[in-house]
Amino acid sequence: MTTSISTGVFFGVGVGPGDPELLTLKAVRRLQQADALAYIVNSDGHSLAKQIAAPHLRAGAQIELPIRIEMCSDRRQAEQAYDEAAASIARLLDQGQDVAFLCEGDPLFYGSFAYLLARLAPKYPCVAIPGISSPQAASAATLLPLALQHENLAVISARCPDAELLDALSRFDNLAILKGGRKRSRVLELIAATGRTRDAVYLEHLTQTQQRVVRDVTTLDDEPGPYFSLFLVCRRKGAP
Amino acid sequence: MTTSISTGVFFGVGVGPGDPELLTLKAVRRLQQADALAYIVNSDGHSLAKQIAAPHLRAGAQIELPIRIEMCSDRRQAEQAYDEAAASIARLLDQGQDVAFLCEGDPLFYGSFAYLLARLAPKYPCVAIPGISSPQAASAATLLPLALQHENLAVISARCPDAELLDALSRFDNLAILKGGRKRSRVLELIAATGRTRDAVYLEHLTQTQQRVVRDVTTLDDEPGPYFSLFLVCRRKGAP
Repeated sequence: MTTSISTGVFFGVGVGPGDPELLTLKAVRRLQQADALAYIVNSDGHSLAKQIAAPHLRAGAQIELPIRIEMCSDRRQAEQAYDEAAASIARLLDQGQDVAFLCEGDPLFYGSFAYLLARLAPKYPCVAIPGISSPQAASAATLLPLALQHENLAVISARCPDAELLDALSRFDNLAILKGGRKRSRVLELIAATGRTRDAVYLEHLTQTQQRVVRDVTTLDDEPGPYFSLFLVCRRKGAP
Repeated sequence: MTTSISTGVFFGVGVGPGDPELLTLKAVRRLQQADALAYIVNSDGHSLAKQIAAPHLRAGAQIELPIRIEMCSDRRQAEQAYDEAAASIARLLDQGQDVAFLCEGDPLFYGSFAYLLARLAPKYPCVAIPGISSPQAASAATLLPLALQHENLAVISARCPDAELLDALSRFDNLAILKGGRKRSRVLELIAATGRTRDAVYLEHLTQTQQRVVRDVTTLDDEPGPYFSLFLVCRRKGAP
Protein backbone atom coordinates (compact mmCIF):
# COMPACT_ATOMS: atom_id res chain seq x y z
CA MET A 1 0.00 0.00 0.00
CA THR A 2 1.32 3.44 -0.85
CA THR A 3 0.37 6.78 0.67
CA SER A 4 0.46 9.83 -1.53
CA ILE A 5 2.00 13.07 -0.24
CA SER A 6 0.77 16.28 -1.82
CA THR A 7 3.60 18.60 -2.78
CA GLY A 8 4.40 21.76 -0.83
CA VAL A 9 3.82 25.32 -1.97
CA PHE A 10 6.64 27.63 -3.08
CA PHE A 11 6.13 31.12 -1.64
CA GLY A 12 8.03 34.24 -2.76
CA VAL A 13 7.79 36.52 0.26
CA GLY A 14 8.65 40.22 -0.04
CA VAL A 15 10.29 41.48 3.16
CA GLY A 16 10.42 45.13 2.11
CA PRO A 17 13.33 47.57 1.94
CA GLY A 18 14.93 47.13 5.38
CA ASP A 19 12.72 48.09 8.33
CA PRO A 20 11.32 44.82 9.79
CA GLU A 21 8.09 46.68 10.54
CA LEU A 22 7.50 47.13 6.80
CA LEU A 23 6.62 43.47 6.23
CA THR A 24 2.94 42.83 5.60
CA LEU A 25 0.91 40.77 8.05
CA LYS A 26 0.59 38.14 5.31
CA ALA A 27 4.36 37.98 4.79
CA VAL A 28 4.93 37.46 8.51
CA ARG A 29 2.29 34.71 8.68
CA ARG A 30 3.67 32.90 5.63
CA LEU A 31 7.23 33.04 6.99
CA GLN A 32 6.12 31.66 10.34
CA GLN A 33 4.00 28.88 8.80
CA ALA A 34 6.57 27.76 6.25
CA ASP A 35 8.39 24.50 6.84
CA ALA A 36 11.55 25.79 5.20
CA LEU A 37 13.13 29.20 4.58
CA ALA A 38 15.30 29.80 1.53
CA TYR A 39 17.33 32.96 0.97
CA ILE A 40 20.31 34.16 -1.01
CA VAL A 41 23.56 34.69 0.86
CA ASN A 42 26.59 36.66 -0.25
CA SER A 43 30.17 35.38 -0.18
CA ASP A 44 30.34 36.12 3.58
CA GLY A 45 27.25 34.00 4.23
CA HIS A 46 25.17 37.11 4.98
CA SER A 47 21.58 37.52 3.81
CA LEU A 48 20.02 41.00 3.95
CA ALA A 49 16.55 39.52 3.37
CA LYS A 50 16.97 37.16 6.32
CA GLN A 51 18.33 39.96 8.50
CA ILE A 52 15.21 42.04 7.74
CA ALA A 53 12.87 39.15 8.51
CA ALA A 54 14.81 37.84 11.53
CA PRO A 55 12.65 39.48 14.26
CA HIS A 56 9.65 37.57 12.89
CA LEU A 57 11.22 34.12 12.54
CA ARG A 58 11.01 31.22 14.97
CA ALA A 59 14.75 30.76 15.49
CA GLY A 60 15.91 27.24 14.71
CA ALA A 61 12.39 25.88 14.24
CA GLN A 62 12.53 25.77 10.45
CA ILE A 63 14.69 24.12 7.83
CA GLU A 64 17.03 26.74 6.38
CA LEU A 65 18.29 26.68 2.83
CA PRO A 66 20.92 29.36 2.20
CA ILE A 67 21.51 29.80 -1.54
CA ARG A 68 24.86 31.12 -2.72
CA ILE A 69 24.47 32.90 -6.06
CA GLU A 70 27.31 35.08 -7.30
CA MET A 71 26.02 38.40 -8.62
CA CYS A 72 28.23 38.42 -11.66
CA SER A 73 27.91 39.21 -15.32
CA ASP A 74 28.38 35.58 -16.35
CA ARG A 75 24.78 34.60 -16.94
CA ARG A 76 25.63 30.96 -17.62
CA GLN A 77 27.11 30.59 -14.16
CA ALA A 78 24.04 32.30 -12.64
CA GLU A 79 21.66 30.07 -14.61
CA GLN A 80 23.45 26.99 -13.30
CA ALA A 81 23.23 28.30 -9.73
CA TYR A 82 19.48 28.87 -10.13
CA ASP A 83 19.11 25.35 -11.56
CA GLU A 84 20.79 23.90 -8.48
CA ALA A 85 18.81 26.10 -6.07
CA ALA A 86 15.54 25.14 -7.76
CA ALA A 87 16.49 21.45 -7.47
CA SER A 88 17.15 21.83 -3.73
CA ILE A 89 13.81 23.61 -3.22
CA ALA A 90 12.03 20.98 -5.35
CA ARG A 91 13.33 18.20 -3.10
CA LEU A 92 11.63 19.87 -0.11
CA LEU A 93 8.41 20.56 -2.07
CA ASP A 94 8.34 16.88 -3.12
CA GLN A 95 8.37 15.95 0.57
CA GLY A 96 5.27 18.12 1.08
CA GLN A 97 7.19 20.95 2.78
CA ASP A 98 6.12 24.54 2.14
CA VAL A 99 9.16 26.64 1.21
CA ALA A 100 9.26 30.43 1.69
CA PHE A 101 11.89 32.27 -0.36
CA LEU A 102 12.77 35.58 1.30
CA CYS A 103 13.10 38.53 -1.08
CA GLU A 104 14.22 42.08 -0.36
CA GLY A 105 11.53 44.54 -1.43
CA ASP A 106 8.89 42.89 -3.63
CA PRO A 107 9.51 39.35 -4.94
CA LEU A 108 8.50 40.17 -8.53
CA PHE A 109 10.23 43.56 -8.77
CA TYR A 110 13.86 43.01 -9.83
CA GLY A 111 14.02 39.96 -7.61
CA SER A 112 15.70 36.56 -7.90
CA PHE A 113 12.34 34.93 -7.12
CA ALA A 114 11.37 35.23 -10.80
CA TYR A 115 14.22 32.92 -11.86
CA LEU A 116 13.28 30.24 -9.36
CA LEU A 117 9.60 30.69 -10.22
CA ALA A 118 10.30 30.07 -13.91
CA ARG A 119 11.89 26.74 -12.96
CA LEU A 120 9.37 25.61 -10.32
CA ALA A 121 5.99 26.96 -11.53
CA PRO A 122 5.53 24.28 -14.22
CA LYS A 123 5.47 21.57 -11.54
CA TYR A 124 4.58 23.10 -8.15
CA PRO A 125 1.97 25.54 -6.79
CA CYS A 126 3.62 28.96 -6.42
CA VAL A 127 2.40 32.06 -4.57
CA ALA A 128 3.86 35.58 -4.38
CA ILE A 129 3.37 37.80 -1.31
CA PRO A 130 4.10 41.38 -2.36
CA GLY A 131 6.42 43.64 -0.35
CA ILE A 132 7.20 47.35 -0.11
CA SER A 133 9.68 48.24 -2.86
CA SER A 134 12.56 50.70 -2.69
CA PRO A 135 10.89 53.42 -4.84
CA GLN A 136 7.97 53.39 -2.40
CA ALA A 137 10.31 53.64 0.58
CA ALA A 138 12.17 56.49 -1.15
CA SER A 139 8.92 58.30 -1.82
CA ALA A 140 7.86 57.94 1.83
CA ALA A 141 11.28 59.07 3.12
CA THR A 142 11.20 62.25 1.03
CA LEU A 143 7.41 62.79 0.95
CA LEU A 144 7.71 63.16 -2.84
CA PRO A 145 4.69 61.58 -4.61
CA LEU A 146 5.61 58.81 -7.08
CA ALA A 147 2.64 59.88 -9.22
CA LEU A 148 -0.36 62.21 -9.08
CA GLN A 149 -3.54 62.34 -11.20
CA HIS A 150 -2.46 62.11 -14.86
CA GLU A 151 1.26 61.85 -14.23
CA ASN A 152 3.30 58.87 -15.30
CA LEU A 153 6.15 57.00 -13.64
CA ALA A 154 9.15 55.20 -15.09
CA VAL A 155 11.24 52.69 -13.18
CA ILE A 156 14.53 52.14 -14.91
CA SER A 157 17.95 50.69 -14.22
CA ALA A 158 20.94 53.04 -14.20
CA ARG A 159 22.70 50.32 -16.20
CA CYS A 160 20.56 50.86 -19.30
CA PRO A 161 21.93 52.76 -22.34
CA ASP A 162 22.30 56.56 -22.07
CA ALA A 163 19.73 57.16 -24.81
CA GLU A 164 17.10 55.21 -22.92
CA LEU A 165 17.72 57.11 -19.68
CA LEU A 166 17.72 60.48 -21.48
CA ASP A 167 14.49 59.61 -23.21
CA ALA A 168 12.77 58.55 -19.98
CA LEU A 169 14.02 61.68 -18.18
CA SER A 170 12.53 63.81 -20.96
CA ARG A 171 9.17 62.07 -21.22
CA PHE A 172 8.25 60.99 -17.69
CA ASP A 173 7.01 63.20 -14.87
CA ASN A 174 8.50 60.92 -12.25
CA LEU A 175 11.30 58.36 -12.32
CA ALA A 176 12.94 55.92 -9.99
CA ILE A 177 16.43 55.14 -11.27
CA LEU A 178 17.61 51.98 -9.54
CA LYS A 179 21.07 50.50 -9.11
CA GLY A 180 22.37 54.06 -9.28
CA GLY A 181 25.34 53.58 -6.97
CA ARG A 182 28.07 52.42 -9.32
CA LYS A 183 26.89 54.69 -12.14
CA ARG A 184 26.26 57.69 -9.92
CA SER A 185 28.28 60.34 -11.76
CA ARG A 186 26.95 59.26 -15.17
CA VAL A 187 23.34 59.35 -13.94
CA LEU A 188 23.94 62.84 -12.49
CA GLU A 189 25.19 64.03 -15.88
CA LEU A 190 22.12 62.71 -17.66
CA ILE A 191 19.80 64.26 -15.06
CA ALA A 192 21.56 67.61 -15.55
CA ALA A 193 21.45 67.29 -19.36
CA THR A 194 17.64 67.05 -19.21
CA GLY A 195 17.34 69.99 -16.80
CA ARG A 196 16.02 67.87 -13.97
CA THR A 197 18.68 68.40 -11.30
CA ARG A 198 16.22 70.26 -9.06
CA ASP A 199 13.72 67.36 -9.36
CA ALA A 200 16.25 64.77 -8.20
CA VAL A 201 17.05 63.27 -4.80
CA TYR A 202 19.51 60.46 -4.06
CA LEU A 203 18.94 57.78 -1.43
CA GLU A 204 20.90 54.88 0.07
CA HIS A 205 20.06 52.05 2.52
CA LEU A 206 16.38 52.97 2.74
CA THR A 207 14.59 52.56 6.08
CA GLN A 208 17.75 51.08 7.57
CA THR A 209 19.78 52.70 10.34
CA GLN A 210 22.36 53.94 7.85
CA GLN A 211 19.70 55.54 5.56
CA ARG A 212 21.06 58.54 3.66
CA VAL A 213 18.96 61.09 1.78
CA VAL A 214 20.67 63.73 -0.38
CA ARG A 215 18.17 66.37 -1.48
CA ASP A 216 20.69 68.56 -3.33
CA VAL A 217 22.32 66.10 -5.71
CA THR A 218 24.89 68.71 -6.83
CA THR A 219 26.62 68.04 -3.49
CA LEU A 220 27.23 64.37 -4.39
CA ASP A 221 30.82 63.42 -5.14
CA ASP A 222 31.95 61.09 -7.91
CA GLU A 223 32.49 58.10 -5.65
CA PRO A 224 30.35 55.08 -6.49
CA GLY A 225 27.54 54.37 -4.01
CA PRO A 226 26.30 51.03 -2.67
CA TYR A 227 24.15 48.61 -4.70
CA PHE A 228 21.05 49.54 -2.70
CA SER A 229 20.88 53.16 -3.77
CA LEU A 230 18.55 55.01 -6.11
CA PHE A 231 17.62 58.33 -7.58
CA LEU A 232 14.08 59.64 -7.39
CA VAL A 233 13.30 62.31 -9.99
CA CYS A 234 9.91 63.92 -9.34
CA ARG A 235 8.24 66.76 -11.18
CA ARG A 236 8.08 69.66 -8.69
CA LYS A 237 4.92 71.67 -9.03
CA GLY A 238 5.41 75.42 -9.10
CA ALA A 239 9.16 75.14 -9.57
CA PRO A 240 10.42 77.96 -11.79
CA MET B 1 0.29 80.81 33.06
CA THR B 2 -0.05 79.05 29.73
CA THR B 3 0.80 75.48 28.88
CA SER B 4 2.05 74.72 25.41
CA ILE B 5 0.71 71.73 23.54
CA SER B 6 2.93 70.27 20.83
CA THR B 7 1.08 69.67 17.57
CA GLY B 8 0.10 66.20 16.42
CA VAL B 9 1.61 64.29 13.52
CA PHE B 10 -0.19 63.79 10.20
CA PHE B 11 0.28 60.21 8.95
CA GLY B 12 -0.55 59.01 5.46
CA VAL B 13 -1.11 55.28 5.93
CA GLY B 14 -1.22 52.93 2.93
CA VAL B 15 -3.72 50.11 3.51
CA GLY B 16 -2.89 48.21 0.33
CA PRO B 17 -5.10 47.01 -2.52
CA GLY B 18 -7.92 45.26 -0.62
CA ASP B 19 -6.87 42.24 1.44
CA PRO B 20 -6.64 43.39 5.09
CA GLU B 21 -3.69 41.05 5.55
CA LEU B 22 -1.66 43.14 3.07
CA LEU B 23 -1.21 46.04 5.49
CA THR B 24 2.30 46.35 6.90
CA LEU B 25 2.92 45.89 10.62
CA LYS B 26 3.83 49.59 10.76
CA ALA B 27 0.56 50.64 9.12
CA VAL B 28 -1.44 48.59 11.63
CA ARG B 29 0.48 50.06 14.57
CA ARG B 30 0.08 53.64 13.34
CA LEU B 31 -3.65 53.17 12.77
CA GLN B 32 -4.10 51.73 16.25
CA GLN B 33 -2.03 54.47 17.93
CA ALA B 34 -3.61 57.40 16.09
CA ASP B 35 -6.02 59.64 17.98
CA ALA B 36 -8.07 60.29 14.87
CA LEU B 37 -8.76 58.49 11.60
CA ALA B 38 -9.51 60.46 8.43
CA TYR B 39 -10.65 58.86 5.19
CA ILE B 40 -12.44 59.76 1.98
CA VAL B 41 -16.04 58.62 1.62
CA ASN B 42 -18.11 58.41 -1.53
CA SER B 43 -21.60 59.83 -1.97
CA ASP B 44 -23.04 56.78 -0.13
CA GLY B 45 -20.78 57.42 2.85
CA HIS B 46 -18.69 54.35 2.03
CA SER B 47 -14.89 54.27 2.35
CA LEU B 48 -12.99 51.43 0.69
CA ALA B 49 -9.83 52.37 2.62
CA LYS B 50 -11.69 52.14 5.93
CA GLN B 51 -13.31 48.86 4.90
CA ILE B 52 -9.87 47.39 4.19
CA ALA B 53 -8.44 48.59 7.52
CA ALA B 54 -11.54 47.80 9.59
CA PRO B 55 -10.35 44.44 11.03
CA HIS B 56 -7.39 46.28 12.59
CA LEU B 57 -9.22 49.28 14.09
CA ARG B 58 -10.38 49.69 17.67
CA ALA B 59 -14.07 50.24 16.91
CA GLY B 60 -15.39 53.50 18.33
CA ALA B 61 -12.21 54.25 20.27
CA GLN B 62 -10.93 56.92 17.88
CA ILE B 63 -12.17 60.22 16.50
CA GLU B 64 -13.38 59.66 12.94
CA LEU B 65 -13.20 62.28 10.23
CA PRO B 66 -14.95 61.16 7.05
CA ILE B 67 -14.04 63.45 4.14
CA ARG B 68 -16.42 63.80 1.25
CA ILE B 69 -14.56 64.68 -1.95
CA GLU B 70 -16.37 64.37 -5.26
CA MET B 71 -14.19 62.65 -7.84
CA CYS B 72 -15.07 65.05 -10.64
CA SER B 73 -13.28 66.88 -13.38
CA ASP B 74 -13.89 70.28 -11.78
CA ARG B 75 -10.51 70.84 -10.15
CA ARG B 76 -11.61 74.08 -8.45
CA GLN B 77 -14.29 72.22 -6.55
CA ALA B 78 -11.81 69.50 -5.58
CA GLU B 79 -9.23 72.09 -4.46
CA GLN B 80 -11.83 73.69 -2.19
CA ALA B 81 -12.76 70.31 -0.72
CA TYR B 82 -9.09 69.60 0.03
CA ASP B 83 -8.76 73.05 1.63
CA GLU B 84 -11.66 72.29 3.94
CA ALA B 85 -10.43 68.76 4.75
CA ALA B 86 -6.95 70.11 5.54
CA ALA B 87 -8.49 72.72 7.86
CA SER B 88 -10.44 70.03 9.74
CA ILE B 89 -7.32 67.90 10.11
CA ALA B 90 -5.29 70.95 11.18
CA ARG B 91 -7.73 71.63 14.01
CA LEU B 92 -7.05 68.16 15.42
CA LEU B 93 -3.28 68.49 14.91
CA ASP B 94 -3.37 71.84 16.75
CA GLN B 95 -4.94 70.05 19.71
CA GLY B 96 -1.98 67.66 19.76
CA GLN B 97 -3.92 64.78 18.21
CA ASP B 98 -2.16 62.43 15.79
CA VAL B 99 -4.26 62.00 12.65
CA ALA B 100 -3.94 58.96 10.37
CA PHE B 101 -5.30 59.41 6.84
CA LEU B 102 -6.19 56.02 5.35
CA CYS B 103 -5.16 55.55 1.73
CA GLU B 104 -5.92 52.66 -0.62
CA GLY B 105 -2.67 51.20 -1.97
CA ASP B 106 0.32 53.45 -1.26
CA PRO B 107 -0.30 56.99 0.05
CA LEU B 108 2.10 58.65 -2.42
CA PHE B 109 1.13 56.62 -5.50
CA TYR B 110 -1.87 58.30 -7.17
CA GLY B 111 -3.33 59.04 -3.74
CA SER B 112 -5.27 61.96 -2.29
CA PHE B 113 -2.75 62.10 0.56
CA ALA B 114 -0.45 64.22 -1.62
CA TYR B 115 -3.00 67.05 -1.83
CA LEU B 116 -3.49 67.15 1.94
CA LEU B 117 0.26 66.83 2.46
CA ALA B 118 0.90 69.88 0.26
CA ARG B 119 -1.41 71.88 2.51
CA LEU B 120 -0.27 70.54 5.90
CA ALA B 121 3.47 69.86 5.50
CA PRO B 122 4.48 73.54 5.76
CA LYS B 123 3.16 73.69 9.32
CA TYR B 124 2.91 70.16 10.76
CA PRO B 125 5.14 67.09 10.98
CA CYS B 126 4.04 64.61 8.31
CA VAL B 127 4.94 60.94 7.86
CA ALA B 128 4.09 58.48 5.06
CA ILE B 129 3.74 54.74 5.70
CA PRO B 130 4.00 52.95 2.35
CA GLY B 131 1.48 50.33 1.26
CA ILE B 132 1.24 47.59 -1.37
CA SER B 133 0.14 49.17 -4.66
CA SER B 134 -2.19 47.73 -7.29
CA PRO B 135 0.57 46.94 -9.85
CA GLN B 136 2.32 44.87 -7.18
CA ALA B 137 -0.90 43.05 -6.32
CA ALA B 138 -1.51 42.44 -10.04
CA SER B 139 1.98 41.07 -10.48
CA ALA B 140 1.52 38.72 -7.50
CA ALA B 141 -1.91 37.57 -8.72
CA THR B 142 -0.56 36.65 -12.17
CA LEU B 143 3.02 35.73 -11.17
CA LEU B 144 4.23 38.05 -13.94
CA PRO B 145 7.40 39.92 -12.88
CA LEU B 146 7.07 43.74 -12.94
CA ALA B 147 10.73 43.94 -13.90
CA LEU B 148 13.78 41.70 -14.25
CA GLN B 149 17.51 42.54 -14.51
CA HIS B 150 17.85 45.34 -17.08
CA GLU B 151 14.18 45.68 -17.91
CA ASN B 152 12.26 48.88 -17.35
CA LEU B 153 8.73 49.54 -16.11
CA ALA B 154 6.26 52.29 -16.95
CA VAL B 155 3.24 53.13 -14.83
CA ILE B 156 0.80 55.19 -16.81
CA SER B 157 -2.83 56.32 -16.67
CA ALA B 158 -5.22 55.07 -19.36
CA ARG B 159 -6.49 58.65 -19.48
CA CYS B 160 -3.27 60.00 -21.01
CA PRO B 161 -3.09 60.87 -24.73
CA ASP B 162 -2.92 57.98 -27.24
CA ALA B 163 0.53 59.02 -28.44
CA GLU B 164 1.92 58.75 -24.92
CA LEU B 165 0.43 55.30 -24.38
CA LEU B 166 1.62 54.07 -27.79
CA ASP B 167 5.09 55.37 -27.09
CA ALA B 168 5.27 53.71 -23.67
CA LEU B 169 3.95 50.42 -25.11
CA SER B 170 6.69 50.52 -27.74
CA ARG B 171 9.57 51.45 -25.48
CA PHE B 172 8.94 49.70 -22.17
CA ASP B 173 9.36 46.01 -21.40
CA ASN B 174 6.67 46.12 -18.75
CA LEU B 175 3.74 48.46 -18.11
CA ALA B 176 0.99 48.92 -15.59
CA ILE B 177 -1.85 50.86 -17.21
CA LEU B 178 -4.06 52.17 -14.41
CA LYS B 179 -7.61 53.51 -14.45
CA GLY B 180 -8.19 51.24 -17.42
CA GLY B 181 -11.84 50.51 -16.74
CA ARG B 182 -13.63 53.33 -18.50
CA LYS B 183 -11.14 53.39 -21.37
CA ARG B 184 -10.96 49.64 -21.74
CA SER B 185 -11.70 49.26 -25.45
CA ARG B 186 -9.37 52.13 -26.39
CA VAL B 187 -6.53 50.68 -24.33
CA LEU B 188 -7.08 47.28 -25.96
CA GLU B 189 -6.77 48.87 -29.41
CA LEU B 190 -3.50 50.56 -28.50
CA ILE B 191 -2.12 47.34 -27.00
CA ALA B 192 -3.02 45.52 -30.24
CA ALA B 193 -1.53 48.30 -32.40
CA THR B 194 1.84 47.79 -30.71
CA GLY B 195 1.66 44.00 -31.06
CA ARG B 196 1.49 43.41 -27.33
CA THR B 197 -1.84 41.64 -26.97
CA ARG B 198 -0.15 38.42 -25.88
CA ASP B 199 1.79 40.34 -23.19
CA ALA B 200 -1.35 41.81 -21.64
CA VAL B 201 -3.57 40.73 -18.76
CA TYR B 202 -6.52 42.64 -17.32
CA LEU B 203 -7.41 42.73 -13.62
CA GLU B 204 -10.21 44.13 -11.45
CA HIS B 205 -10.78 44.41 -7.68
CA LEU B 206 -7.38 43.01 -6.78
CA THR B 207 -7.02 40.80 -3.70
CA GLN B 208 -10.72 41.33 -2.94
CA THR B 209 -13.37 38.60 -3.02
CA GLN B 210 -14.60 39.79 -6.42
CA GLN B 211 -11.07 39.75 -7.94
CA ARG B 212 -11.14 39.07 -11.68
CA VAL B 213 -8.13 38.15 -13.79
CA VAL B 214 -8.47 37.97 -17.58
CA ARG B 215 -5.37 36.41 -19.14
CA ASP B 216 -6.63 36.48 -22.72
CA VAL B 217 -7.61 40.11 -23.20
CA THR B 218 -9.14 39.36 -26.64
CA THR B 219 -12.08 37.85 -24.71
CA LEU B 220 -12.89 41.22 -23.04
CA ASP B 221 -16.02 42.95 -24.25
CA ASP B 222 -16.39 46.68 -24.87
CA GLU B 223 -18.18 47.41 -21.60
CA PRO B 224 -16.39 49.83 -19.32
CA GLY B 225 -14.84 48.26 -16.22
CA PRO B 226 -14.71 49.59 -12.65
CA TYR B 227 -12.34 52.37 -11.52
CA PHE B 228 -10.10 49.90 -9.71
CA SER B 229 -9.01 47.96 -12.75
CA LEU B 230 -5.73 47.82 -14.58
CA PHE B 231 -3.81 46.25 -17.42
CA LEU B 232 -0.45 44.64 -16.86
CA VAL B 233 1.65 44.34 -20.02
CA CYS B 234 4.74 42.23 -19.40
CA ARG B 235 7.40 41.14 -21.87
CA ARG B 236 7.08 37.34 -22.18
CA LYS B 237 10.39 35.63 -22.56
CA GLY B 238 10.57 33.01 -25.24
CA ALA B 239 7.27 34.06 -26.81
CA PRO B 240 7.37 33.72 -30.60
